[in-house]
Amino acid sequence: MEFVSESIVRLYDTDAAGFIFSGAQFRFAHEALENFLEHVGLPIARTIRDRHVLFPVVHAEADYRAPLAVGDRLSIRVVVRALGDRSFSMGYRLLLADGREAGSVVTVHAAVAAASGASCPLPAEVRAAFGPYLQPEARQD
Amino acid sequence: MEFVSESIVRLYDTDAAGFIFSGAQFRFAHEALENFLEHVGLPIARTIRDRHVLFPVVHAEADYRAPLAVGDRLSIRVVVRALGDRSFSMGYRLLLADGREAGSVVTVHAAVAAASGASCPLPAEVRAAFGPYLQPEARQD
Amino acid sequence: MEFVSESIVRLYDTDAAGFIFSGAQFRFAHEALENFLEHVGLPIARTIRDRHVLFPVVHAEADYRAPLAVGDRLSIRVVVRALGDRSFSMGYRLLLADGREAGSVVTVHAAVAAASGASCPLPAEVRAAFGPYLQPEARQD
Amino acid sequence: MEFVSESIVRLYDTDAAGFIFSGAQFRFAHEALENFLEHVGLPIARTIRDRHVLFPVVHAEADYRAPLAVGDRLSIRVVVRALGDRSFSMGYRLLLADGREAGSVVTVHAAVAAASGASCPLPAEVRAAFGPYLQPEARQD
Repeated sequence: MEFVSESIVRLYDTDAAGFIFSGAQFRFAHEALENFLEHVGLPIARTIRDRHVLFPVVHAEADYRAPLAVGDRLSIRVVVRALGDRSFSMGYRLLLADGREAGSVVTVHAAVAAASGASCPLPAEVRAAFGPYLQPEARQD
Repeated sequence: MEFVSESIVRLYDTDAAGFIFSGAQFRFAHEALENFLEHVGLPIARTIRDRHVLFPVVHAEADYRAPLAVGDRLSIRVVVRALGDRSFSMGYRLLLADGREAGSVVTVHAAVAAASGASCPLPAEVRAAFGPYLQPEARQD
Repeated sequence: MEFVSESIVRLYDTDAAGFIFSGAQFRFAHEALENFLEHVGLPIARTIRDRHVLFPVVHAEADYRAPLAVGDRLSIRVVVRALGDRSFSMGYRLLLADGREAGSVVTVHAAVAAASGASCPLPAEVRAAFGPYLQPEARQD
Repeated sequence: MEFVSESIVRLYDTDAAGFIFSGAQFRFAHEALENFLEHVGLPIARTIRDRHVLFPVVHAEADYRAPLAVGDRLSIRVVVRALGDRSFSMGYRLLLADGREAGSVVTVHAAVAAASGASCPLPAEVRAAFGPYLQPEARQD
């Protein structure tokens, strides 16, 4: 399965070169991740409030294929690329209204016990919620 | 009339104190403004692309009444507070799901000829599009 | 007395209109505030870590007088505009290298007990540290 | 050679989990890049203003090794990882005051003719300015 999140490029996402600042693409991916987490019943507000297990990003990467300008509408296709014992990886493809891929993002998240800051096993509820979206073969670049 | 724009507080809007960074409230207001402009037929993408008349912010202010946390859903009520010869002012009220007002923003925009950078009259199409949303008496603070 | 903080406008502060996004001016002011707090011996890292009394912004406003472009160097002059029993107000003037004022910001901060979220008296150490920078008559707009 | 840029983690770089938002690390790298460009005589303000050849990011990646909190001081070590015919790659290592590496970033930039948006050869002045900082073997992850 695949989850789709919708976004619009805002003026504050762009810079004086006329297109989005490269770092803004990670903000789009993160917004899509929050929408995905809400969709699978694991809203980030609860994760942050509970402070039991957190999922910090340990690696992130992005490719940029087409310039994005203010007002562009994006469909962001979200998949789970890997579900490890203590980490998971997400993939995001940013598609323009005409179907062209404007860019893609990959993030790798570690499960970390909030109290100790130490690596810990991925909670079973995360594994269960993410499983249907696992697409290890998903091309992200 | 009043225009309503919906937003969700994202992790990147918050800071280590646990709530939104004060500057983020202006980003919410700006997002609502872009949605308003789209709604009244004056999408910001066209304004930026045409580079005929721009509407830079010359004054902005915000009040903060309730802390906003990640996941909070906001309804942002947008009105036009003033329509001058060469400027306009917008008001935004940020309402939480339970109806409480989390904060408010006011922005004042000057009409500026992009080519010269000089003040210029507000275009007639802006005046016509904004007119129905004019609420000079709107309490914003 | 007055404290001066130096900043440079970065590409990510600008937007597709070619100048800084209005909300970015509040980020400049906040950076200057953090430098001021460090200078007077009250580093924000300690305030956040101790979670004893926090100083959330309850009101903020900005005026914009000259467009700011990437690479512009700013001297931000910081004063204390008011020291109340349970709040304080800061003023910031953003000066370009040629002395022109590009804009100004005012922020009002409430003292809040972190545990309860309730208003509380301004700690004596804040009052002592801020006192020498009090300039109630400072013109900020 | 290596260029070193200094930064401080600000409150607006952090999120409600208590540490920097992952996307903020790309902003630190970009700030270091602007300081590097200034240092080698190619200030970004001129590049943006001339609109002759632009250098958009076509790939970016980051590793995160230690959580960064508000007030942390970073030394960002900048090297040129590759100088191609039509692109270049930069590497950034974010070091804490105690010498630990908090994270690293790699960015790949294409040379693009601003007028046409098409790929173009890397200008000779970029090649000359970047040459001394070329460290193809630099470990960035």
